[in-house]
Amino acid sequence: MRQLHLNLFIHGRGHHEAAWRHPAASPLGLADIRYYTGLAQQAEAGLFDSIFLADTLAVGDDVAHAPRAWLEPVTALAAIAGATRRIGLIATCSTTYTEPYNLARQFASLDHISGGRVGWNIVTTWLAAAGRNYGEEAQPSHAGRYARAEEYMQAVTALWDSWADDAVLDDRAAGRYAAPGRIRRIDHAGAHYRVAGPLNLPRGPQGRPVFVQAGSSETGRGFAARHAEAVFTAQMEKATAVEFYADLKARAAALGRPANQVLVLPGLCPVIGGTEAEAQRIWRELGDLSDPEVGRQRLSGRFGGHDFTHLPLDRPLAPEDFPDPATVQAARSRTEVIVGLVRREAPTLRQLLDYLAGARGHFVTLGTPEQVADLIEDWFTTGAADGFNLMPPVLPAMLGGFIEQVVPLLQRRGLFRREYGAETLRGHYGLPRPEARFPGHP
Amino acid sequence: MRQLHLNLFIHGRGHHEAAWRHPAASPLGLADIRYYTGLAQQAEAGLFDSIFLADTLAVGDDVAHAPRAWLEPVTALAAIAGATRRIGLIATCSTTYTEPYNLARQFASLDHISGGRVGWNIVTTWLAAAGRNYGEEAQPSHAGRYARAEEYMQAVTALWDSWADDAVLDDRAAGRYAAPGRIRRIDHAGAHYRVAGPLNLPRGPQGRPVFVQAGSSETGRGFAARHAEAVFTAQMEKATAVEFYADLKARAAALGRPANQVLVLPGLCPVIGGTEAEAQRIWRELGDLSDPEVGRQRLSGRFGGHDFTHLPLDRPLAPEDFPDPATVQAARSRTEVIVGLVRREAPTLRQLLDYLAGARGHFVTLGTPEQVADLIEDWFTTGAADGFNLMPPVLPAMLGGFIEQVVPLLQRRGLFRREYGAETLRGHYGLPRPEARFPGHP
Repeated sequence: MRQLHLNLFIHGRGHHEAAWRHPAASPLGLADIRYYTGLAQQAEAGLFDSIFLADTLAVGDDVAHAPRAWLEPVTALAAIAGATRRIGLIATCSTTYTEPYNLARQFASLDHISGGRVGWNIVTTWLAAAGRNYGEEAQPSHAGRYARAEEYMQAVTALWDSWADDAVLDDRAAGRYAAPGRIRRIDHAGAHYRVAGPLNLPRGPQGRPVFVQAGSSETGRGFAARHAEAVFTAQMEKATAVEFYADLKARAAALGRPANQVLVLPGLCPVIGGTEAEAQRIWRELGDLSDPEVGRQRLSGRFGGHDFTHLPLDRPLAPEDFPDPATVQAARSRTEVIVGLVRREAPTLRQLLDYLAGARGHFVTLGTPEQVADLIEDWFTTGAADGFNLMPPVLPAMLGGFIEQVVPLLQRRGLFRREYGAETLRGHYGLPRPEARFPGHP
Repeated sequence: MRQLHLNLFIHGRGHHEAAWRHPAASPLGLADIRYYTGLAQQAEAGLFDSIFLADTLAVGDDVAHAPRAWLEPVTALAAIAGATRRIGLIATCSTTYTEPYNLARQFASLDHISGGRVGWNIVTTWLAAAGRNYGEEAQPSHAGRYARAEEYMQAVTALWDSWADDAVLDDRAAGRYAAPGRIRRIDHAGAHYRVAGPLNLPRGPQGRPVFVQAGSSETGRGFAARHAEAVFTAQMEKATAVEFYADLKARAAALGRPANQVLVLPGLCPVIGGTEAEAQRIWRELGDLSDPEVGRQRLSGRFGGHDFTHLPLDRPLAPEDFPDPATVQAARSRTEVIVGLVRREAPTLRQLLDYLAGARGHFVTLGTPEQVADLIEDWFTTGAADGFNLMPPVLPAMLGGFIEQVVPLLQRRGLFRREYGAETLRGHYGLPRPEARFPGHP
């Protein structure tokens, strides 16, 4: 039977905007590695496939009012690797602001360190403030970032393939460390990058990290269909999730890729109560801790700095209140999702901010453990998801609630593993281990 | 009483060129994190101040005959941090090939992860093959690399100082995460870098990583006097070590820096036997495992690819057999040391390669534990060293021998700690914690 995949998305003290202030949130600081290690161990005890650290390459303007700072993902996951044994470890890293040789090395090293458990969430970085931390006056356009990312993928994949799996002999008696024909230069020379190679460490247990992607714009979907092995996506309703799922699988199939090698994992923020009323109470409690002005500033950031200052909180919104998503050189797909919601439901700004506070435009559901399990089963069995990018509102408490109350229901229904069946992230996700391709050297 | 500092330099399966083939070397692979973790724990049990991982940004041409590949240092040390509690962790990272914002973040993150134990070995990277992995046809000149490195230090130091120590409030009740006046942009805009800042994580326990440097050329000494808090240096005899020590302390003093805040740690490769004859036997055994043609190729690499192919192994060398070190755009100080040795002692090429095989131009000494302790005490008390960058010929066995046989002698003489007295690397090295300087914002 087809099995569900669960990834824990670690973000601040939870995904709700006010999580960091909630009494059930972790008492630890956000630069304390024990916080992250503890969550990873908790998710591993819950048999999750993986954990995931997002990233932003600049501190948020609203850091006075919200925790916009965290450990750097690659170093954090290297530390977490030693404190876990099975769970996959997915780090975000930017193609726009990291040298290909450095990225390829660090992820290969992480794959060795973790025994084959690393995944790379490929981002092109849309934040103008990030560009200013990397010498740029104006950030490259959305299309420009993706064009560079395409070439970047060629270069780093070639680096990961520059050592054959059997390259290391380590023959101490004969004094032969490596089989020389099995380590090759890549001589990548494109419009944006020149990388001679080979990489300076042996191929990792997984060959390459698992490729994860989260861009859902038209350009992002094309990129995901070509490269991604797992896709994190933000969907605000099942109908769009089904559309996205079908579209991405079709795009992958058109490129000759098997549908089960491109997993679609929508974000899911479950607010779980013993009764529906209790879930509602928890949600209101979180809303009461939120500041709509923090939300307004965040919304402005999403729309490339657009000024929403004068928009009243309590009149219904119209699409005309927003700039055209096609003109936003940012995380375009998320802006499309928000304007789509406004078009369908005409919420007030206060209602919109209240919803976005839950999980920043990902799907939020309130209910009992049974209801959450029903929703997961429904999306999983009717073409909306291969699993979920779980975004608990408050960490670690509401991850604990999900593991204790929802996971057993999923197991009882035969949807989720009762023990780990594999050692690597590729194994958990059911993905093949790629052969080294030796590009440029047929 | 002034105390000796000991750093374990981890390199392959030991510092002797043939270590990887030696029967006493670790059975683990060189991409196996357990190898590095085990050495760090061993050094910590021996109360060492720190461990150190060097780095090279390209695979060696002679990888067929020697292990020229290893884990990436930053990720490896993040993993080691969790497996150790007290020992300092020093990673090499290149100013020429790493974005300042990325380096500042990863080292700040490592400092948080390790609880204030991280050091940064600042290198400008001299290898032409490295440049070709980063888009360069020709590598920047020796002087050009150092000019960029000066500006780089300004930018990363400003990033580490962009959060005041008291910036994080994490006041959950009041909804105030940070004191906004205590997190500031750096707006660095120089000839080579533009970095707006601030950094996106709080200041680490040490404020900044401990700055380590190993360039010993004229330019390198000036850079070390300005920035380094510990200097690893390669000296082939005590006389040059004394000269270097006095020169560096004088340069630092001229800049107003206290002499005890620039520690000088020469490399030391001790070949220890129960008797002198046994030490000689161990040395010959290692020599017998070495291939002079591997050494010849390495020597060529040191001299910027100069061709030594036709030089006979067994006639005495003269300085004219080498290119002028001033013309070598590489690790210039090491080439000066080698040509100096040739001028003084006129060894044959075979003898030179045999010596360099021991520790690549660092000081090698053969003797009993008493003799090694005598040498350490002599250098330490007569102005040649503040401690040593220990380079055991074979790992982990010969580190174990040093800890079991030499460390107790040093302790008995009152030269070395009997327990850790501090929690951070700055504490071990006796260095102050720097105040945040808030550059550009007086």
